[in-house]
Parts: sequence; structure tokens; C-alpha cells
Amino acid sequence: MPATPAWPPRSLPRLFVESSLAEGATLTLDGAAANYLGAVLRLRAGERVLLFDDSNGEFVATIADAGKRRVALTVGPRTRERETVPDLWLLFAPVKRGRIDWLVEKATELGVARLRPVVTERTIVDRLNLDRLRAHAVEAAEQCGRTALPLLDPPAKLAAVLKGWPDDRTLHFADETGGAPLAGVAAPAPAAILIGPEGGFTDAERGAIRALPQARAVALGPRILRAETAALAAVSLWMAAAGDW
Amino acid sequence: MPATPAWPPRSLPRLFVESSLAEGATLTLDGAAANYLGAVLRLRAGERVLLFDDSNGEFVATIADAGKRRVALTVGPRTRERETVPDLWLLFAPVKRGRIDWLVEKATELGVARLRPVVTERTIVDRLNLDRLRAHAVEAAEQCGRTALPLLDPPAKLAAVLKGWPDDRTLHFADETGGAPLAGVAAPAPAAILIGPEGGFTDAERGAIRALPQARAVALGPRILRAETAALAAVSLWMAAAGDW
Repeated sequence: MPATPAWPPRSLPRLFVESSLAEGATLTLDGAAANYLGAVLRLRAGERVLLFDDSNGEFVATIADAGKRRVALTVGPRTRERETVPDLWLLFAPVKRGRIDWLVEKATELGVARLRPVVTERTIVDRLNLDRLRAHAVEAAEQCGRTALPLLDPPAKLAAVLKGWPDDRTLHFADETGGAPLAGVAAPAPAAILIGPEGGFTDAERGAIRALPQARAVALGPRILRAETAALAAVSLWMAAAGDW
Repeated sequence: MPATPAWPPRSLPRLFVESSLAEGATLTLDGAAANYLGAVLRLRAGERVLLFDDSNGEFVATIADAGKRRVALTVGPRTRERETVPDLWLLFAPVKRGRIDWLVEKATELGVARLRPVVTERTIVDRLNLDRLRAHAVEAAEQCGRTALPLLDPPAKLAAVLKGWPDDRTLHFADETGGAPLAGVAAPAPAAILIGPEGGFTDAERGAIRALPQARAVALGPRILRAETAALAAVSLWMAAAGDW
């Protein structure tokens, strides 16, 4: 965890906004964001917040006018550039609500660049509320000082994902029938991690994955891990071995 | 994740019981456990479950009599010895309900031997519901095929924890002001990981920790992580570098 910067002060509220930010711009928030700043935090004209837009970095902004439903702000100087994260994709068979929310939140904190839900034969959950998942990613980014959001794809079938697989991206897949320790075989970015459903891949699916020249079977220890735990552990190991830790 | 064993079938319900298990023993469950087997799963005489007691391993058991409030079982052969896990302690400043529950659940899946909540000056939460946390550890162990539970201590002040620190146990502490990458300096068991509160350690606390000859400052990458994320990333890294992965 990095040293606490002197500026901006960590206690300023921090919000993601869809608008494109630039010094001197004005913007108006409504809906949940306005309610949060105006009614929950009860901020008033002259008070400051931090804003980021996933494109231009982070900016301090001053409230010009605040109500429960509408908050107007003037954007001040940029405080930070949009960060870069290692080019890591996390592919995962969707799990139930609550657990998948946790997975998306933690993957965002850890700096995953792209989240790709993958439907396999034994996937229990194949419908996702992408808006809710995106909200979790946004909240994690807001609270952990991120200036970039992970890409979040709609679910896709495993076969389709493998068919279009980029030549230069290593696919580390967690294989319950055995693989090398991830820390030892982690390939640098561009990279991907694939966590299958808790029932495991079928033999045919495993064969299709292993048939990719970019695929590497990895193991995550001798104990059974829930899918979201395996995903978090694998991302952490990759970040330490081949990412930017 | 280990290969799926041929026996016992993975679909048998799996329960932790307080009673000491041995082949040929009989036991009676009541309360929540009986309700789960008798009313929720609607198991009947002759059906089988798996039981473990955190001491003697895992046993198959056959239901002798099942009702909503009381289930009698006969214990059959042992299916697995009580597992051993690496001797790793996880020390953490408590966080809010929900997040601390996840921490305990995931730490149990990852094989942490002992969970020690530590109260520091900037700890926000200093009261824990240990029964609820233990229930989370039990559930994680039941669902992930564990035969051993982590020890779970009541909260203790940091100074007291440091005062009694065992000579032979390395203390890897996540230091937001800087440290070495954990993967590079992970010492083998007996070991410990210490994750501080989100406000960080005070200078005095950091000094006291660093004064321990067994202490090693570690860093977990350039991004801010929530405390429970840092804990599980650190445990994963230690398991891969110095544990049994």
C-alpha cells in the first residue's frame, strides 16, 4: 500500500462520474450521486470532493451549489493521471449474487484490467446483472483511490472465448486435475487467468482449453477453494510474480 | 484444487460436529444441525452424510432416525485423517461485519491455522461476535472439504500480542510506508501475517512492530487494498512462497 500522499487529503469524498473531466469544466450531478453528496454527506457550496472519470485521471472539484437532487460543481486541478494497471484479464464462471459481487470488488482493488464472465457446461449461474456488478467495481475504485475501472464484459460461452483468443496472451487456467504452481509459471502481460465453475470443467472443455498454445494449467494448492477465493488468490499470485507488485 | 476423489462422493452433505468421532459411535444432533439434515435436506434413515470434528478427521455416518429437531446417526469408517495445514497465523485489525465474515471464511478456505484479531489505535471495530465468526469458519470448512478448523482468538491489543511474541515465528507485517515484496521475503512456518487497520499503524506502533527481531515489513503492490483483501492476498502469497502450494 503506497505512502499516504500529502495532497489530496484522504478524507475528501471521492466519486466516479461519467462526464469527461477537465480543469475549469462545470458539471451537474443528479440521482444517487447528488443524493450522496447533498443529502448524505450534506456538503455545501465551497466544499471539495475528488472526481475521476476513468479517462482523464482524478481532479479536485468544488461544490458550486448543493441540493438533495442536484449538485453543481466546478472542476479544479487534476490531482493524478489515470493510472495504468498490468494488462491482466480475469475470466471466471459466474457464481451467485453476493459472491460474484465480492469477486468483482476484490478484482477491482487488485488492479485487474478486464473481467470476463464465461459460461461453461457446469456453470450454475448464467445471467448477470451487469449494472449491479459495475456499481460494485465503481464503489471499490472510489474507496480505494483508483482512477481506472476494469472493463466488464457480458457473459460469453467458453467456446466463443477460446475461438477468438489473442495469440499473444497467456491463459493461466486453474485446473483441479493438476497444474504447475502459478507463482512459478506466471507469464508477464498480456495475460489472463481462467477460474472454472465449482463443478469443474468437463473433459471436453479441459481439452479445448489445453489445446490453446497459450494455455498453462496452474494449481492453487491442495485445498478446495471457492471460485471467488481461487480468483483472488490467482490474481494476487500473478500480480506478485509477473505484474506490478 | 485437488482431484475429485472417487470416495466419498462429493455430493454427500458435510457437517462439523462437536462430538468426538470414532467408527461405531452413535451421536444425536439437535438444533440447527438437526433442522438442516432433517427438515431442510429431508434425509431419512439409511442415508449418509460426512462428519468431521476438527480432531479425528472425517467419517461417513448413516442416519438411524431423522426428525426436524433430532437426528440420530451411526458413525461409519473414517474417510480421511485430520489434515495438517502450514503453521500460519493471520493477525488483523477487525473490520466491519460482512467484511470480517468474508475474511474469516476465506482465511479458512486458504488454510490459515490461527486467526488473531488485534486492536490497534486506529482500529474502528473493537468488538467481535466470535460465535458468528466461528460459524463462518465452520461453514467454509464444511463446504470446502476441510477437516480442521482454524483457531479463532478473542481480540487482543497490539502491545500485548507483541509482548508475548514467540521467538521462532516470523511476523510479516503489511506496511503501507513500504516493505519488500512478500513473495521474495516470505519465511517458512512457523509464520504470521499482520494486517493493520485501514487508517494504518501509528508511528509508535510501527516502531514497536519493527523492534521485534522477527518482524519483516512487506508491501502488497502499489494500489490501496481494503484490509480483508490485503489479508487474503498476503496469505495466498505466503502459501505459494513458503506454505504448501
